Amino acid sequence: MPGDPDEPTPVDDAARDIERLLEEGSLDEALAQLAELHAADQALVIGQLDAELRAPLLPRLPRDAMAEILGYLKEEPRSSVVEELEPAALGPLLDHVDQDVAVDILHGLPPERAQATLAGMLTAAEVAPLLPHPDESAGGRMTSDFVALHQDWTVDQAIAHLRSYRPDAEQVFYLYVVGDEHTLEGVLSLRSLVVGAPEARIGDLMTTEVVSVGAAEDQEEVARRVQRYNFVALPVVDEARRLVGVVNVDDVLDVAEEEATEDMYRMAGLDEDESLLRPVAQSIAPRLTWLLVNLVTAFAAAAVVNAFEGTIERVAALAVFMPVIAGMGGNAGVQTITLVVRSIALGNVELRDVSHVLRRELIIGISNGVVIGLMLGVMAYVLKDNVGLGVVAGVAMLLNMATAATAGVMVPLTLRAARLDPALASGVFVTACTDILGFFFFLGLATLMVDRIA
Amino acid sequence: MPGDPDEPTPVDDAARDIERLLEEGSLDEALAQLAELHAADQALVIGQLDAELRAPLLPRLPRDAMAEILGYLKEEPRSSVVEELEPAALGPLLDHVDQDVAVDILHGLPPERAQATLAGMLTAAEVAPLLPHPDESAGGRMTSDFVALHQDWTVDQAIAHLRSYRPDAEQVFYLYVVGDEHTLEGVLSLRSLVVGAPEARIGDLMTTEVVSVGAAEDQEEVARRVQRYNFVALPVVDEARRLVGVVNVDDVLDVAEEEATEDMYRMAGLDEDESLLRPVAQSIAPRLTWLLVNLVTAFAAAAVVNAFEGTIERVAALAVFMPVIAGMGGNAGVQTITLVVRSIALGNVELRDVSHVLRRELIIGISNGVVIGLMLGVMAYVLKDNVGLGVVAGVAMLLNMATAATAGVMVPLTLRAARLDPALASGVFVTACTDILGFFFFLGLATLMVDRIA
Repeated sequence: MPGDPDEPTPVDDAARDIERLLEEGSLDEALAQLAELHAADQALVIGQLDAELRAPLLPRLPRDAMAEILGYLKEEPRSSVVEELEPAALGPLLDHVDQDVAVDILHGLPPERAQATLAGMLTAAEVAPLLPHPDESAGGRMTSDFVALHQDWTVDQAIAHLRSYRPDAEQVFYLYVVGDEHTLEGVLSLRSLVVGAPEARIGDLMTTEVVSVGAAEDQEEVARRVQRYNFVALPVVDEARRLVGVVNVDDVLDVAEEEATEDMYRMAGLDEDESLLRPVAQSIAPRLTWLLVNLVTAFAAAAVVNAFEGTIERVAALAVFMPVIAGMGGNAGVQTITLVVRSIALGNVELRDVSHVLRRELIIGISNGVVIGLMLGVMAYVLKDNVGLGVVAGVAMLLNMATAATAGVMVPLTLRAARLDPALASGVFVTACTDILGFFFFLGLATLMVDRIA
Repeated sequence: MPGDPDEPTPVDDAARDIERLLEEGSLDEALAQLAELHAADQALVIGQLDAELRAPLLPRLPRDAMAEILGYLKEEPRSSVVEELEPAALGPLLDHVDQDVAVDILHGLPPERAQATLAGMLTAAEVAPLLPHPDESAGGRMTSDFVALHQDWTVDQAIAHLRSYRPDAEQVFYLYVVGDEHTLEGVLSLRSLVVGAPEARIGDLMTTEVVSVGAAEDQEEVARRVQRYNFVALPVVDEARRLVGVVNVDDVLDVAEEEATEDMYRMAGLDEDESLLRPVAQSIAPRLTWLLVNLVTAFAAAAVVNAFEGTIERVAALAVFMPVIAGMGGNAGVQTITLVVRSIALGNVELRDVSHVLRRELIIGISNGVVIGLMLGVMAYVLKDNVGLGVVAGVAMLLNMATAATAGVMVPLTLRAARLDPALASGVFVTACTDILGFFFFLGLATLMVDRIA
């Protein structure tokens, strides 16, 4: 269960204070208040401020503070903040942020500006090789800011290397061990180094059982592997098994969150960039696209009803139960599809499980279809004093529950087999099936029995 | 995008080999094959095996291997595996697993068996205090297996402590620093210890800016804080700010995954324990519960249609467009609700934002409602050569899109304000609104204009 939504946190209070100070024009006081906060909280406050209030603040922030804030900002406010920064200041700033963040920011810039910014960076030589990797690949998520030890070093040499090496201490959790060609040979925890004998050889202390990921692999695979093995970082290797980077678990958390959001949004027919923070004008067209797809399927359902208009003319009561049969089928279908889509995402189900999953969902759909069909049938009979109508409604309901189970399993697994995202607007397709077939079963049966129910 | 679903991974191959060996009765060979795998992969294989095939295997696994496997098993197969173990063997086994896992397993046992198991544990004194914390609180997720250093120690003393201390090396990422009453005073990275001067005082090296969480706080808050600050572990304190445990990031990843699953399932009217791996008999009743709730709302919609049966008798063509208006509204409503529920979960929207969010969604709903209403109106006119019908259908569509936006915002925010989960079967409630009001608008307008469209 979520926590209390109404209790203002200390950060909320600080955010309001700072907003008020900026509105009053007390810039120095606002800066002083902001400086009191943890960088993650500073990022939260800055991300929430309106652009006009933020404008005088940004140039006054010390470079190191700004670099830390960029590291903590979520993607959405970050791109706005980056746009508001002095172009010439961006390059030197990116020298001070984590490389995976710098790469993300550079990827978000127009090509010319990205080029100009990179040219202004002292770390351009390290960051440039990271740029060709797609955003959502292991390579796109990795940093090359990691600690690698040679397997022939001693513990003392390794500690000396650590002392002289500059990376942000918080990010060093595993020490990766490489061979002569910089190939990944093993991994060592910092604790083993701390408690190891000074003259011990790294290659003898390390674990050779090291799990890695290829730079071209999908970020979802990175998340899956980190989660399966409970790691806090995963080394990234190239085709020759050379160590080229490391993905840290904070990025994996972001990936897990992004992927869950993407699945939810796609199932509902929202594009993955949809957000309540997005300018409203940008949201209208993408939503309309899926609604138009849905309109086509809705017309298909309407065509089915249209074909049976003569029957409805004779038995207007059919129109009363049509939405119940279609709606219940739709909801049951959404239950199944939600379960299947999430199970695919969590790796609990694969294509070869299709017959098992289909059988399972059909058992549930038919069992519940019998109960709901009976209830609907009795209700129709009682309400309209019409046995034939009750039988037709009950049977159509049962058939539509079976349809819901079948469509709920087959739509996402078919998308998967076609190498598409199983979540892709699958809610729209499943309710299309249950609408179209639901009306067909109900009105078709009613037409066959029209003389008994009219 | 997900990776290739069809490419068998090495683990899949190993799983099939081991399954085959067990079917053939070659237990020793199966054990040997299993021993080759990483413990996380062993857990995957064992979780996938049928209970009968697993039965001869479990007692033959060395205790340390079994303990590691328990740590990696997902909740679902883990509870089955635990049930299959020799009762007397469980206590000594739990001495060797992470304490948060031991607590989870003990929570899942019937009370008498939990008592008996705890009595058989050497670490009972450490684990027992963790048991009263609810599963989904910070206290329920924490382990007391962490490293705490006293602020007055020197680096040398701290290293000596680390050498003598037994915890699993992989789990030590931060060293927490405590004062005399075991109160949390600061945090130190292992790297600072490694590179610190031997006689330096821990209290001088540590960062005092340490973020913690209260034992009674919700696990979602733990996930939020770890994610906001990019930590790999979060210290847990009691009311007196004494350090009582640590939640590690691997558990936070599990929390983030569980919470996303829970939201998706609840929106669709699935209970949070639903799973394709669950025995089918256990899935039928919980699903039926929500379908019955939905049946009540469907009857409400049917009652609206029933009230207008006279109009439908005169204009049977209305039945053709009813499902289009209800269905399109339902889909638009699900778009909005998905966005709002996910935004609440990610902390991007709060109750005080309601008017902003409502305004935003109404703009989108009405803009798209105009487009879709026009298309539907023209379609109805062309199909039935009936201007009045076209006007009524178009206007009702527009009104229902506005309803969808309003319900999609208000249903989850109202649940939130009532301190309920905003995702709670909210899909069912939103489609109920769009069905009931959609029919009311359409059939009501048609009744008002019935002389012009009949």
